[in-house]
Amino acid sequence: MIGVGIIGLGTVGSGTLKILTESQALIKERTGLDIKVVRIAEIDPKKTKGKGIPAGILTKSAGELIEDRNVHIVAELMGGTGLAREFIMSALEKGKWVVTANKALLAEKGDDIFRIAEKRGCEIGFEASVCGGIPVIRAIRDGLVGNRITSMLGILNGTSNYILTRMTDEGISFDDALRDAQKLGFAEKDPTFDIEGIDAAHKLCILVRLAFSYPIQMKDVITGGISKIQPIDISFAREFGYKIKLLGVAKNVNGSVEARVEPAMIPVSHPMSSVSGVFNAVYVVGDRVGPTLFYGKGAGSEPTGSAVVSDIVDMALRMETKNHRIRGPVYRVGKRAKSAKEALVPYYMRFTAQDRPGVLSKVSGILGDYKISISAVNQRERKESGYVPIVILTHEAGEKNLKKAKEEIDKLPFIKGESVHIRIEEGNL
Amino acid sequence: MIGVGIIGLGTVGSGTLKILTESQALIKERTGLDIKVVRIAEIDPKKTKGKGIPAGILTKSAGELIEDRNVHIVAELMGGTGLAREFIMSALEKGKWVVTANKALLAEKGDDIFRIAEKRGCEIGFEASVCGGIPVIRAIRDGLVGNRITSMLGILNGTSNYILTRMTDEGISFDDALRDAQKLGFAEKDPTFDIEGIDAAHKLCILVRLAFSYPIQMKDVITGGISKIQPIDISFAREFGYKIKLLGVAKNVNGSVEARVEPAMIPVSHPMSSVSGVFNAVYVVGDRVGPTLFYGKGAGSEPTGSAVVSDIVDMALRMETKNHRIRGPVYRVGKRAKSAKEALVPYYMRFTAQDRPGVLSKVSGILGDYKISISAVNQRERKESGYVPIVILTHEAGEKNLKKAKEEIDKLPFIKGESVHIRIEEGNL
Repeated sequence: MIGVGIIGLGTVGSGTLKILTESQALIKERTGLDIKVVRIAEIDPKKTKGKGIPAGILTKSAGELIEDRNVHIVAELMGGTGLAREFIMSALEKGKWVVTANKALLAEKGDDIFRIAEKRGCEIGFEASVCGGIPVIRAIRDGLVGNRITSMLGILNGTSNYILTRMTDEGISFDDALRDAQKLGFAEKDPTFDIEGIDAAHKLCILVRLAFSYPIQMKDVITGGISKIQPIDISFAREFGYKIKLLGVAKNVNGSVEARVEPAMIPVSHPMSSVSGVFNAVYVVGDRVGPTLFYGKGAGSEPTGSAVVSDIVDMALRMETKNHRIRGPVYRVGKRAKSAKEALVPYYMRFTAQDRPGVLSKVSGILGDYKISISAVNQRERKESGYVPIVILTHEAGEKNLKKAKEEIDKLPFIKGESVHIRIEEGNL
Repeated sequence: MIGVGIIGLGTVGSGTLKILTESQALIKERTGLDIKVVRIAEIDPKKTKGKGIPAGILTKSAGELIEDRNVHIVAELMGGTGLAREFIMSALEKGKWVVTANKALLAEKGDDIFRIAEKRGCEIGFEASVCGGIPVIRAIRDGLVGNRITSMLGILNGTSNYILTRMTDEGISFDDALRDAQKLGFAEKDPTFDIEGIDAAHKLCILVRLAFSYPIQMKDVITGGISKIQPIDISFAREFGYKIKLLGVAKNVNGSVEARVEPAMIPVSHPMSSVSGVFNAVYVVGDRVGPTLFYGKGAGSEPTGSAVVSDIVDMALRMETKNHRIRGPVYRVGKRAKSAKEALVPYYMRFTAQDRPGVLSKVSGILGDYKISISAVNQRERKESGYVPIVILTHEAGEKNLKKAKEEIDKLPFIKGESVHIRIEEGNL
């Protein structure tokens, strides 16, 4: 019998408990293994009430759970980067294997955890930390083991994808879409982590360490959010054949890894563009297999619980057969070696300009000064206020140059407010 | 050192050899394992020439390869259901683990092979047999191990998907699209296996045995092809918001498994509808995780080789640690227990009728007699010949009733030729 201890009975913890309890016979039929939740640590009585937890299993002390000799696998599902880290470190020190869904912890303080796991001969399962129920960690680690990963695109945050989907399908504003997402429980009261790309950047960090075997740090991930996206940009994107997504992008550019999370345009013909609502997807390009895509629910009690359970079963299978071999460097620790080279990509730019002769010539002249060439222009009909939106798609350009050109253009007397620029990911990686 | 023997150096065998040779160091870095191709059996000298195969490795005798005590894993990549079966049986009898990409063999004669593997304590890796490079077998087996799979949709054959994509995007005929596919090497000279759904049915069989743990036989899979699909049906489908795909569908209907491969309409908003060209995808619904989707190249030398290599590495990892534990029933053997109940789905029907009053009333009357109700009708403008296409979308109906109604309608004096009916898979499984 393999004993599991669950620390934290929130959304993911409850889903994990439910699946392990209700599917115990199914898992035994499939693997021959008896896997049982033997301890649960939770301090909030509201979270443990009415869940049919047998007496004697429950404790308020995570330390007690970790010490319990019947607990072979510790599932840290409480979240946060303080106590959760202490509990994981303590479990590893005692030689217990650990499963966690804690993306923030792994992305920000993963080095220590993986170092001690290696030292103690323990393994850390983190399938649930990236894209909830999608088995993308094992797909990359095991399924594509013969491939060098050359690039990845990810729709890694369901909240922001839900908001952008509503804005795209219904033409509503960011604020209205966010309000609905909050009403429906898809967004937190303070939605900063989700809408400003931080949660997605955590996941991208973990994916990059696994897929590129590269010790990226959070500060190296260029991170932007969706709160400034306007319906007019979504509408122009559609005219040019694109959708706007909060896209995690990681590429191997001349031997250095570039990683960014920000709103980007992607062609409607690209499979990532049809990932709608709260769904997540990761598009992984391997040098042998070519492009692959993994899609599913990125959050939720049972979807994420399903990923936690898959890690527990995997570990239990190997424990039972004394296969305590650690897999290769699934999470590369260390300091980042060199900084990323700038990737050249096309851009969408939108200026608000007075509707008079010579404007376009002046704007395109400044772009030309910065060696940015134009692939398409769209100027809308005259507005009553005397201002019109001018949209320019550029050929491949560096972001630094583009920003300099934009600053210069924004200073022109006939340009109103700050102009908009959005990356275009053609996705033919 | 783990020794691999490759039987057959065709497309997949060459890709596997290339990856194992070129990525030997990468695999060692990731797993600590030395995996080496130590024997290759191939009778055709044209296939071995110029591939830099070291002397002494090559043999014309698969038997010799199987006997070789340095061969721990036998990769059967020759195809066919005759000799390939004999070689696999013989390898298993000798206690060797086997990796195969042979979907026809597994679907048609898999029972014997898996029975002997279990008897001898050997494992069979078959990731490469379904959808080439997409790691869908391990996704279902390991990633969704805590889930009961309730239904699956699959675009399982790249040739037919390429043909349908060309027909859809360019409005060309089936014959023209097939000719192009043959020119480009995407279709065989005799394309029957691909375009008539047989290859896709093989893969669906394997998926059903794995995902539903149900011993389905090929004869139980209702199988139809795409050769009768006409541009007019693709065009009507678009008007109603659908695309036509050769779709593998497997559902758990009241405890019995229904499996079919045939052209079906799927909403353009469904993620499966954006799987284009030679790409494959499997949409798997689990009771815990909800819908998931796995996408990638379903064929080709290195994509399929990538899957073969993932199985070899997985086996090698466990051999090295004496973890000879067989995973659960990944391929359910035995006779099918009970026949499937008929699933009720909506249908698209197209009749060619004389353009005169009373036609629609008569047609809908017959449908009504068979309790088939109509959800939408589309009648196109008058044709010079005096015949017009009448398209009807039905509500959910059984196929038997639908076919009876169609036969009766086709006998009406003002109906020309045989009418068309195509299933609609809304895909909200």
